[in-house]
Amino acid sequence: MRLSRSFLPTLKENPAEAQIVSHRLMLRAGLVRQTASGIYAWLPAGLKVLRNISQIVREEQDRVGAQEVLMPTLQSADLWKRSGRYDAYGPEMLRIQDRHKRELLYGPTNEEMITDLFGQAVKSYKDMPQVLYHIQWKFRDEMRPRFGVMRGREFLMKDAYSFDLDYASAVASYHRMMLAYLRTFQRLGVRAVPMRADTGPIGGELSHEFLILAPTGESGVFYDAALEDQDWLDTPVDVESPTALEAFYTRVTTPYAATDEMHDTTAWDAVPEDRRREGRGVEVGHIFHFGTKYTKAMDVSVIAADGSQIYPEMGSYGIGVSRLVGAIIEASHDENGIIWPASIAPFKAAILNLKVGDETCDALCERIYNENPEEFLYDDRSDRAGAKFADADLMGHPWQIVVGPRSAKEGRVELKRRATGERHDLSVEDALALVLAD
Amino acid sequence: MRLSRSFLPTLKENPAEAQIVSHRLMLRAGLVRQTASGIYAWLPAGLKVLRNISQIVREEQDRVGAQEVLMPTLQSADLWKRSGRYDAYGPEMLRIQDRHKRELLYGPTNEEMITDLFGQAVKSYKDMPQVLYHIQWKFRDEMRPRFGVMRGREFLMKDAYSFDLDYASAVASYHRMMLAYLRTFQRLGVRAVPMRADTGPIGGELSHEFLILAPTGESGVFYDAALEDQDWLDTPVDVESPTALEAFYTRVTTPYAATDEMHDTTAWDAVPEDRRREGRGVEVGHIFHFGTKYTKAMDVSVIAADGSQIYPEMGSYGIGVSRLVGAIIEASHDENGIIWPASIAPFKAAILNLKVGDETCDALCERIYNENPEEFLYDDRSDRAGAKFADADLMGHPWQIVVGPRSAKEGRVELKRRATGERHDLSVEDALALVLAD
Repeated sequence: MRLSRSFLPTLKENPAEAQIVSHRLMLRAGLVRQTASGIYAWLPAGLKVLRNISQIVREEQDRVGAQEVLMPTLQSADLWKRSGRYDAYGPEMLRIQDRHKRELLYGPTNEEMITDLFGQAVKSYKDMPQVLYHIQWKFRDEMRPRFGVMRGREFLMKDAYSFDLDYASAVASYHRMMLAYLRTFQRLGVRAVPMRADTGPIGGELSHEFLILAPTGESGVFYDAALEDQDWLDTPVDVESPTALEAFYTRVTTPYAATDEMHDTTAWDAVPEDRRREGRGVEVGHIFHFGTKYTKAMDVSVIAADGSQIYPEMGSYGIGVSRLVGAIIEASHDENGIIWPASIAPFKAAILNLKVGDETCDALCERIYNENPEEFLYDDRSDRAGAKFADADLMGHPWQIVVGPRSAKEGRVELKRRATGERHDLSVEDALALVLAD
Repeated sequence: MRLSRSFLPTLKENPAEAQIVSHRLMLRAGLVRQTASGIYAWLPAGLKVLRNISQIVREEQDRVGAQEVLMPTLQSADLWKRSGRYDAYGPEMLRIQDRHKRELLYGPTNEEMITDLFGQAVKSYKDMPQVLYHIQWKFRDEMRPRFGVMRGREFLMKDAYSFDLDYASAVASYHRMMLAYLRTFQRLGVRAVPMRADTGPIGGELSHEFLILAPTGESGVFYDAALEDQDWLDTPVDVESPTALEAFYTRVTTPYAATDEMHDTTAWDAVPEDRRREGRGVEVGHIFHFGTKYTKAMDVSVIAADGSQIYPEMGSYGIGVSRLVGAIIEASHDENGIIWPASIAPFKAAILNLKVGDETCDALCERIYNENPEEFLYDDRSDRAGAKFADADLMGHPWQIVVGPRSAKEGRVELKRRATGERHDLSVEDALALVLAD
C-alpha cells in the first residue's frame, strides 16, 4: 500500500474523548473512528488487524475440530422465550420491533439459536459430538460505553458451542478448547493466563476466563510464576485422547491463578513467595461448561445408542475479537505508539522514503515495495523525515526500512526493529531477507 | 472434511416453504437454515460459498484501487437526518431505540456514514480520489420476505463509494468499477450483463444494474448477442488511463441491453434479428454515479488546488453477496441438485467410499483425502452407494471421486465431473492431477 493513496488518517493530537492508551492510539493511528456511542467503523489498517486476529482464532478453532457457521445478528425473541432468558436478560439486550410488530433482538450471544439449529439437524448419537462456532458482530447496550473498542456496544466475538453425549465427553471438549485458546493467544503475540471464574448468569459448574496481562487492565490478577513463559505451541497434546487432555488441563490449572474477584488468600499464601506474581489483566476470553441447561429448557434431545432420549451436555466458549485489538495494544505499546506483534500487524514493514523526488531513493523504494506491496506500507509522501518516523512509530509496524539518499546510492538501507528500537545499516538484500523471514 | 463428522444436514424432501429452486436446493443441501422470517443462519458449506464469493469480490475491488473498511451494522439516525433521508426512507428501514431512547437504525446502505467518515479524514485535493468499500450485513425490512436468501431481510452486501474532485474523474471511477464487476462475475463462473438502469431513490444520472441470466429471474432482459461470451479477464484495460477506460466502457455499453422496465422497442428493432436475445435475469449488482447529492447535503467539502472549497463527486457500487449464492444456483443447477462453479464451490471434490470397512477402499480414500483435507469432502458414512451419489449431486461438488472395492485394488477410481456428468476410469494419480489442477 502506498501511503499517499491510502485511507490511513493519523492524528497528531491526543483525542480528548479517549481515556485509555489503546483508545488514544487506535484513534491516532487511524485504525477506527467512532460513528455513534460505543459503535466504531474500522478503517483499512484496523480492519487488517481485526482480520488477522480472526484468522488465527479460526485456524485454532478448526484445529480442535470446531466447525464454522455464521448466525445472523438479529434473532427472534421467541427463541429466547423458549430458554426463559428473554425476560431475565436486562437492559443490555437491544430489543427491536419490525414493521409487523414482531419482537426481534440484536444477539448478545447465541446459546439459544445454536441449540435450536443443532436440534433441527442432529437427532442421533451417531452424529455426536459437535462443536460449532461463528465470528459475528454482537450488541450489548452498555449503560456507559467507554474505552473505545474495549467496551463498545457493537463488538466482534468468536463464540463456540459444544454438544456432547455425556459429562466426560463434555469435559474433553472443554479441555480441547482451553488448549485452542492458549495456542490462539500465544500466536497473537500476547500472554493470556486462564483463571478459574465465576460462572455468572450463563450458569454451569466449570468456567475459566483468559486475561491478557497489561498494566492498565481492569482486574487485579494473582498467579504463580510457573504459568509464565509456557510454550503452548510446542506442547504436543493428542486432542483425540481424553487422558492426554486431562493431563494437559491439570498442568494448566494446578498453579495458582485468580482474579481479585475469586482470590483466595489462603491458597495464595501457600505459593512460594518468590513465585508470586501480582498484576492487572484484561479479559479477552471466557469458557464455560454448563451441562444441559439449554438443551433441557428448549427440549432438544438426541437418541442414545440404547434407544433412550438424552439431553446433550453443552459448553460455550467466547473470544472478544474486536476487544483483543485494544487489549493487545494495552499490552504492547510505548510512549511513541503501538508495537504490533508480527502475526497481526496490519503491515509487516514501513518503507520510509526520506527524499521523495530523488531518483535513487525513489527507485530503491519502488524496488523494495514491489517485493510485497500487500504487506509493505510505502511512505511516499513529500513530508519531512521526522513526520515519517513519528507516523511509523505510532502505527507500530514491526519493521521500518529507512531509505536515505546517501545510503541508497550504495544499495543500503537502515533497518529498525520497532519493538526494540535496534537499528542496523544493511544491504537491501539482507534487510529484505530479515523482514520477509519474520 | 469427513462427512461423518461434519455439520452438513441434507434433506431428502423438498421443504414446503421454498417456492424457487435455489431456495429448495440451499435448504436441501444444508447450506442455510431460516432462523426468523427472511433471516438465515449459514451452515458450514454455505458459509464456505459466501466466503469464496466475498474473497473474489474483494480481490477485484482491491485490483481497481478500492480500499476495504468495515462500517458497523447499526447507525445513528442523526446521520440520516443530515442527508434528509431519515424521514424519506420508508418502512423497509429498521428503526431502533436504545436504552437511552436514542434513535438508531440497522443500516440498509451506507452513503451517509461513508460521507461522514470521508469528510472527517480528507480535507485536501492532495488526498483525492478515494474509493472505499466494505462487505457487511445490511437489513431491509421487506414486507414479504421470500425466495430464501434472494430476498431476505438480513443480507450481506459489498458496497463501495467513490469520491472524486470533478465529473471526469468520477466517470473514470465509474468505468473502473464496471470493469471490476464484469471481472468479478466472470470469476464467479456466471454471465452477468450490465444494463442501463433507472437511478431511483439514490438519485443521480448514470446507473447500470448487472443481471445474471437465469430462467427463473425476476426481470425480463433484452440484449444484443454481441455481449455474449466476452472474456473480461482476458481484456487488458489500463485502469490508470481515462482514455482506455472510456474505450472499454463504450465497448461494453454500445450493444443493446435493457431490462423490461427500461426496454426501448425502437432501439431493439434496430438490433439485427439474429443477434436479439431475450431471457430473464436476477439483479446481483448495481452501480450509480450521483454527483454531489450527499456531499452537498452533508456539507462535506475539500480544498481544491486553487484554494476553493469543492464538494466531491460520488458514486456507489453494490454487489449482493448473499443474494449471489441463490442467484448462482438459479443459473447453475439441474434436476439432481446444485452445480457449483469451481471458483466458489464449498468443496472441490467429494470422495465417495462405496464400501466403508473394506480395507483397500478405506486406505485408498484416506490417501486421496490427505492430499487436500480442506477442499475434499470425504463421504465416509456407512450409507448405501445410492445415497452417497444423490448427496454428492445435490451438494454440487465440481468433481466426484468414486472409490469402489474392485477398482481400488488396482489403484483406480471413477472420476465424475458434476457439470457434464462425464465419468472416467482413471488411476488415482491421474484423477488427482485433474482435480487439483481445476
